[in-house]
Amino acid sequence: MNATKSNQLRWNNLDETHAFEKLRELPKPDLKQLLSAERISSHSIPTGGKLVYNYAAQPVDDLTVTALSELAVEQQLVEKYQALLGGETINTGEKRKVLHHLTRGELGGEVVESGKNLRSFYREQQQRITDFAEAVHKGEVCGSTGKPFKTVIQIGIGGSDLGPRALYLALLTYAKTTPGVKKMDARFISNVDPDDANEVLRDIDYESALFVLVSKSGTTQETLTNRQFAMEKMNAAGIQDLDPEQHMVAVTSETSPLAKSHDYLESFYIDDYIGGRYSSTSAVGGVLLSLAYGPDTFAALLEGAHEGDRAALEPNPRRNAAMMDALIGIYQRNILGMPVSAVLPYSQALVRFPAHLQQLDMESNGKSVNRYGEPVSYQTGPVIFGEPGTNGQHSFYQLLHQGTDIVPLQFIGFNQSQDKFDIVMDGAQSQQKLKANLAAQIVAFALGRENEDARKNFAGGRPSSLIYGERLTPQSLGALLSHFENKVMFQGFAWNINSFDQEGVQLGKILANQILSGKDLDPVIFAYTSLLRVR
Amino acid sequence: MNATKSNQLRWNNLDETHAFEKLRELPKPDLKQLLSAERISSHSIPTGGKLVYNYAAQPVDDLTVTALSELAVEQQLVEKYQALLGGETINTGEKRKVLHHLTRGELGGEVVESGKNLRSFYREQQQRITDFAEAVHKGEVCGSTGKPFKTVIQIGIGGSDLGPRALYLALLTYAKTTPGVKKMDARFISNVDPDDANEVLRDIDYESALFVLVSKSGTTQETLTNRQFAMEKMNAAGIQDLDPEQHMVAVTSETSPLAKSHDYLESFYIDDYIGGRYSSTSAVGGVLLSLAYGPDTFAALLEGAHEGDRAALEPNPRRNAAMMDALIGIYQRNILGMPVSAVLPYSQALVRFPAHLQQLDMESNGKSVNRYGEPVSYQTGPVIFGEPGTNGQHSFYQLLHQGTDIVPLQFIGFNQSQDKFDIVMDGAQSQQKLKANLAAQIVAFALGRENEDARKNFAGGRPSSLIYGERLTPQSLGALLSHFENKVMFQGFAWNINSFDQEGVQLGKILANQILSGKDLDPVIFAYTSLLRVR
Repeated sequence: MNATKSNQLRWNNLDETHAFEKLRELPKPDLKQLLSAERISSHSIPTGGKLVYNYAAQPVDDLTVTALSELAVEQQLVEKYQALLGGETINTGEKRKVLHHLTRGELGGEVVESGKNLRSFYREQQQRITDFAEAVHKGEVCGSTGKPFKTVIQIGIGGSDLGPRALYLALLTYAKTTPGVKKMDARFISNVDPDDANEVLRDIDYESALFVLVSKSGTTQETLTNRQFAMEKMNAAGIQDLDPEQHMVAVTSETSPLAKSHDYLESFYIDDYIGGRYSSTSAVGGVLLSLAYGPDTFAALLEGAHEGDRAALEPNPRRNAAMMDALIGIYQRNILGMPVSAVLPYSQALVRFPAHLQQLDMESNGKSVNRYGEPVSYQTGPVIFGEPGTNGQHSFYQLLHQGTDIVPLQFIGFNQSQDKFDIVMDGAQSQQKLKANLAAQIVAFALGRENEDARKNFAGGRPSSLIYGERLTPQSLGALLSHFENKVMFQGFAWNINSFDQEGVQLGKILANQILSGKDLDPVIFAYTSLLRVR
Repeated sequence: MNATKSNQLRWNNLDETHAFEKLRELPKPDLKQLLSAERISSHSIPTGGKLVYNYAAQPVDDLTVTALSELAVEQQLVEKYQALLGGETINTGEKRKVLHHLTRGELGGEVVESGKNLRSFYREQQQRITDFAEAVHKGEVCGSTGKPFKTVIQIGIGGSDLGPRALYLALLTYAKTTPGVKKMDARFISNVDPDDANEVLRDIDYESALFVLVSKSGTTQETLTNRQFAMEKMNAAGIQDLDPEQHMVAVTSETSPLAKSHDYLESFYIDDYIGGRYSSTSAVGGVLLSLAYGPDTFAALLEGAHEGDRAALEPNPRRNAAMMDALIGIYQRNILGMPVSAVLPYSQALVRFPAHLQQLDMESNGKSVNRYGEPVSYQTGPVIFGEPGTNGQHSFYQLLHQGTDIVPLQFIGFNQSQDKFDIVMDGAQSQQKLKANLAAQIVAFALGRENEDARKNFAGGRPSSLIYGERLTPQSLGALLSHFENKVMFQGFAWNINSFDQEGVQLGKILANQILSGKDLDPVIFAYTSLLRVR
C-alpha cells in the first residue's frame, strides 16, 4: 500500500482494496431476475439541472451496491474530489491542480496561487468574454471593413474542438426556437487535412467572419497551421481593407507564445489547470458559445454544471448519480469484464455529444499505470462510442442485442423536444415515438424475449442506465456535462490513475515532426514515409 | 460437421476447421520483432480503384498467413462468394439471394428469377435514375410552382441513411472542386426525433426542394413519420400552388405499400436481395448521388466498387486484400481476443464513413448463432468505431496508445487532398503534415518507445493496417466501400454466420409499437413508459 502521500489521502490501487475483493466474491445478480416496476421507481438519483440518473437496469443488487459504496469510502472518492476542489495537485504527473469545476463555481473554498485567486481569474475571463460578446452583438466591435460579425469560426482540435462543437450543436435548435438566443452562426476547423479548412471556408464572407483560435499551449501544430491557412485564404480573397488579424481572437494560456502576440483583436485566457477535454466551461467553450448564443446562455450552462458538481459531493453513492454511475462502470469493467460502453442519446441535438464523451473518458482513463507510474494489473477505461437513437437502432444495435459480447449502455432522453413543432401520426407525436422507442430498447436489452428460433431469440441480460430530464436546455446540458466529467473523475480515483494527463499523445507528435524534418529517419519510418509519399 | 447443404459447399463453424486449431497452436508473432522496411514494401495488396491494402503492421508472419490461407480454403471463402454472385440463397434465414454486387456489375453469370434478369433490373433502375436526374438538372422536371429543384433531402434511416450520407460527404469537396460535378445540395432526415426534421427543414426553400423517401419495406416508422412531417411542414408554409407530393420521389421495393401509391413524382425500385446496409450502390444511394453529383459520378463509384468486387474473387489471400483483411480480423478476434476495432481515416471527407462501417460490420456480423440457427462458441463481429485523423489523435488515441486493452486499427489515407488549395508552413503543406502524422502513428503504435518513466512509456505491439490511394475520388471511394463490404462478407463465411439478416432489430420495434398502442403493457414496460412520460 502507498502510504498517505498528501493530506491524509490514501492512493491505493483498486485491487488493494477490501471492497474489490468482496465484489469479486459476491454472486453476480441476474438482471432479468432483478428488474421490476418497483425497482424502476426506486433507483433514480438526481444529478443537477433537473436531470435524473436511473440504474434500475443494471445488474447490481443491494449487496453489490453496498460493496460498491464501501469501495467509494475505501478509495475516498469524495475526499479526493474535495481535495481537487480545494486546489491540491491532483494531476501529479504534470504537477498541476485540476480546476475546471472552478470555472463554474466555488465548492472547495478559495484556491489561491502566488496571491492570485483562481476563481476570480476565471470569472474575470468570463466577464471579459461577456463584454466582448455583447460589443460584437451590438456591432460596437466589428470587422476590419466595417461589417458586423455574423459567423464565428473556432479553430482548435481535441478538447478545443469536440466539447465546444458538441455543446454548440446541442443547443442549436434550442437557440433558434427561443426568442433572442441565437446571435451568430458557428463553424469549426480542426483537422490538419486541408480539405477541412477548405470546405469550412469555401462560402465564408470573410468581412463578417470572426475566428476564435484556441490552443492552451499556443503550439498545437494543427491549430497554428489552420490559423495560417485562414490568414492566407483571407489575403487571397483580395478584399480591400480586409485585415485578417482584426478578425481573430485567441484563447490561450497567459504564458503561451500566442499570448505574447499582438496580432489579435482580443485574447482570453485559461491556465494549465484546465485540461483540454475539461475546458468547455472555460474560455475555450465560453467565447464561442457566448458569441453564438449570448453570455446568458453560457452562464446558464455553467449554472447547470455547477449544480451537477455540487450533487457529486454527496458521500453516499445511493444519492450521488455521478458516483453511482462511476462505480457501476467499475463493476462492469473489472468484475463483469466488459471492455466497451455505448452512449446512446435519444436526442438528435446530442449528435456529437458521444464524440466528446469518447475523448473525455478514453483520454482521461485510457491508462496502464497508476498515479505513481506503476503498472496496474487490472483493466482501466473502456472504449466509448455512440450515436443518437433512434438512428443507432437501425444500425449497430443488432450487435448490441445479439452479438457475442455484452456492451453496457448509457441512454439519455428528454420529455420534450427542443423545437415545439411536432406532428401526430398514428395517434402519437414524433417525440412520443422517440420516447416509446427509448423505453422499448431498455426493456428489450434487459429482459430479452425467448423464441424457439434461435435467430429470433433475445437473451436479454444486457445492462443499461438512463439519464433523463424535462428538456435539453443550457442548464440541463451543463448538468449532463458535469455528470460525465465527475463520473470519469471518480473512476480515475477508484482505479488510482491520473485522469488528467495524456502522455499517450506525445510519441505520435514527436515522430510526425521527425518525419517532417526528414532527418534521422529509421528504416521503418522511412519506409512508411515513402509509401505515403510524405515528402 | 454440417454436410454439404447446397451445391457442394460446406458450411462449418470456425472451430470445426483444422486451420483454426492450427492457428490456436501456432506461436503468436511479436509485431515489434516483425516490422521492417522490407516487410512494409512487400505486404501490399491492390484492392481496386488504385487503392492498396498494406498489412505490414499486423502481428502475422508467414506461418500465420499460411494457416489463415488454409482457413480460407477450408471455409471456401471464394467459392461461397461465387455462389453469392451466382444468385444462391446465401441469406438463408430470410431465404433470399444477396445481390448488392450485381448493382455494379456481373461477375457470376446471369442471375435470373421467374424469368427476370436481375442485373437488367438494376441497370434499368440506374438508367431511370440517370434520366430523371438529367431531367431535373436541365429543369425539365421541376417543382410544383415551376422553380427548378436545387436541394435534395433524403428521408431514410439506417442503411437508407448512413451509406448515402457518408458517400455524399466523402465526395462533397471533390464535387465542388471538379468543374461540372456539383449539381444540387443534399440534406438528410433520419431520426424520429422531431428536432431532426425541424432543424433540417428550418431554412429550406420548399419550392426548390426534392425529397427522396427511402424505405425498402415501405413500412419504416421513422421514415413514414418524417415523410408526413415534411408534408405537414410544406402545407403549413402556405405557399400558393405548392403540391407536396410533386416534391417527393420514392425508393422502395416493387411490392411495398409505397410502390402502390401514386403520390410521388417518381418511384425507383430495389428488391429484397439488396440489404439496407449494402444498398448504397442501388437506387438507395443512386438517386441522391446522381441528383447531387450527376449520374456520371455515381457510375464512376459503381465502377470502382465493381473493380473491388472483382479483386475479391482472387483465391489466394496474399493477393486478395479484402480476404486478407477479413482473415487478419478473425485472427485478432478469435486468436488474440480483441473485441473492438477502430477505423481511422486520415481524410476529413470520410468523416461519416466510420459510422457507415459501424453499421455494415456490426449489423452484419453481430450474431451469436450460425447460419443454421445454432449457437456458436466463439466470438463473432467486433465493435467498430472511429473518427478522422488527425482529430482522433487529440482525443481517444490516448487509450489506443496506453490503455490496458489493445485495439487493432484500420488506417485509411490518400496522397492528395480533394481540394488542391494548400499552404506551406514550416516547410510542409498541410497535406504533408496529415500524411506525416499518419505514418508516425502507424509506427508509434507498432513499435512504441521505451521510457524509464512508465507514464511516458509506449509498449507498442499495437497492430494496424493501412488502405491508401492517390486521391479520394468516386472510383476509389467505390473500391473502398467494396473492400469493407467484402471483408465483412468473408468474415461472415469464416464464422459461418448469416451476415445478411438483422433479426436483432425486431424486438425493439415490437415493444415500441406495443407502448404506443398502450395495450397489454407489462409492469416493467409500463414503469419505463411512465418514467419517460411517453403517453
